[in-house]
Amino acid sequence: MSPAPPDEAPDPARIAWIAADWGTSNLRAWAMDAHGLPLAEAGSGAGMGGLARDGFEPALVALVAPWLAADRRTDVLACGMVGARQGWIEAPYATVPCAPTGPAVEAPATDPRLRVRILPGLRQDGAWDVMRGEETQIAGLIADDPGFDGVACLPGTHTKWAHVSAGEVVSFASFMTGELFALVSTASVLRHSVATEGWSAPDFAEAVEETLARPERLAGRLFGIRAEGLLAGLAPERARARLSGLLIGAELAAARPYWLGRDVVLVGAPALARAYREALALAGVAAREADAAAMTRAGLAAAWTRLANTERRPA
Amino acid sequence: MSPAPPDEAPDPARIAWIAADWGTSNLRAWAMDAHGLPLAEAGSGAGMGGLARDGFEPALVALVAPWLAADRRTDVLACGMVGARQGWIEAPYATVPCAPTGPAVEAPATDPRLRVRILPGLRQDGAWDVMRGEETQIAGLIADDPGFDGVACLPGTHTKWAHVSAGEVVSFASFMTGELFALVSTASVLRHSVATEGWSAPDFAEAVEETLARPERLAGRLFGIRAEGLLAGLAPERARARLSGLLIGAELAAARPYWLGRDVVLVGAPALARAYREALALAGVAAREADAAAMTRAGLAAAWTRLANTERRPA
Repeated sequence: MSPAPPDEAPDPARIAWIAADWGTSNLRAWAMDAHGLPLAEAGSGAGMGGLARDGFEPALVALVAPWLAADRRTDVLACGMVGARQGWIEAPYATVPCAPTGPAVEAPATDPRLRVRILPGLRQDGAWDVMRGEETQIAGLIADDPGFDGVACLPGTHTKWAHVSAGEVVSFASFMTGELFALVSTASVLRHSVATEGWSAPDFAEAVEETLARPERLAGRLFGIRAEGLLAGLAPERARARLSGLLIGAELAAARPYWLGRDVVLVGAPALARAYREALALAGVAAREADAAAMTRAGLAAAWTRLANTERRPA
Repeated sequence: MSPAPPDEAPDPARIAWIAADWGTSNLRAWAMDAHGLPLAEAGSGAGMGGLARDGFEPALVALVAPWLAADRRTDVLACGMVGARQGWIEAPYATVPCAPTGPAVEAPATDPRLRVRILPGLRQDGAWDVMRGEETQIAGLIADDPGFDGVACLPGTHTKWAHVSAGEVVSFASFMTGELFALVSTASVLRHSVATEGWSAPDFAEAVEETLARPERLAGRLFGIRAEGLLAGLAPERARARLSGLLIGAELAAARPYWLGRDVVLVGAPALARAYREALALAGVAAREADAAAMTRAGLAAAWTRLANTERRPA
């Protein structure tokens, strides 16, 4: 499954379509063969957050031009914030409960070598929530295991927990844990006490157990990290692990209805997924891990196959 | 008690000493008479955070020069972050349980018209915590009511709860609620959904009650503010009140051992003290309010009287 290095551009004749994961900060694309396998991978920092409406097409062409055939349109199927209101074109949210990936929206492109479609995100009414991008990873999980009945936890800036059953997302909940960790560790008074690298497994575990059992302690224990650094020389690496543990423990306390007694699959960056796995183990849950990029590709591949079949073109 | 406008500089002969509240962001000073009453007030943005070691004396002189007599030293007694390790000179913390204001440390000054002393902050070992500045407001509470036995709540960037009994601070706890509110409302994804002004009392109350009863919900309800803004047009003023209520409710859940069944006095900026008073009322606590600047002056005056008596000078 590992893609070829980007300098070995595959023959465009072998490329059936292009998969794109286009988030707020990054654009990542894969040249896909007709069987849903990646032939090449490319990435850039041209995230949605830094692009004006007319900047999307040039950013995409700059990345994938070596993969485009001159004499036909190549399909591009994208997911993520590129489909937000501030993105290339809005792909309106589908409302849960529903299948994770809904009808794609075609983006306006002028280059005759491209046809770009964007998958919508999901919304939840009442217990208001939204996601864009993670739904495609959930689609990948279902494509890999169509009978999956359990919970997907997708750790990140805004961690998502989703209850998946019978091929649908039943409900989901978002937690700002990653963003809070970044803000508190780099922009609050704790920036003086918390390292940007390093780890302490015992401090992480102790902190998870504390806020999992007593989530109200989060509010008071944060400043304690600063005070212990000042007064007792708490090592900045230990402070970092403790801050992460306090936040993840409090998240687990809130997400208990999702993980309690369920089959949990973690989909996220390896270091973060590992932290969640260890925290869940302390709560008695043996979570599995799935590769985030592979799930994104699998979800896009499943959606592309559906699109291609609908259009009576060879999948 | 209201000081004269700063343009009516009092006769330096009437000025017995100068009180200074010198925090991270601001410097505020009062010309005090021999009875501990303010004759004039002045303030500047020359906070500790923006000053190098040799910048403190010029910043102070620039503010209080009109109050200084040419032919004698005028005492200045200061509290706050000016006594931190990064301040003018370190005034080492006193360790609780102890009286709120400990021995003052003289700062190195070259101007012959000044003698500057700085009050130390408080530290707590074990349940590690620190304060600088708030201890002087607590001293003011005790000076006003020597028999006070209860809890001082000092809302701010880092809200402090202190158990006060028999003239001493028995224990205290800090919460980063104010700093979290500022970071989340201006630097996180919620900045798109939360107003910088405006309020909704019902949303505040509902949010306080939610996290006071279920503090674990804080983690999940934050992103919900963003989602409800996107999907259901939640008004940014309502979002602001809700964010504040979620954070203060979670703080009250954690600070329960401080306020439950106690006499609570709030010392802080009026709008913030009012929010805490309303939140405490929802928890069944009728908190009183005390003026923060008056408490600072009263605490400094009590410490200055003690200093003057020790030195056998007229108080």
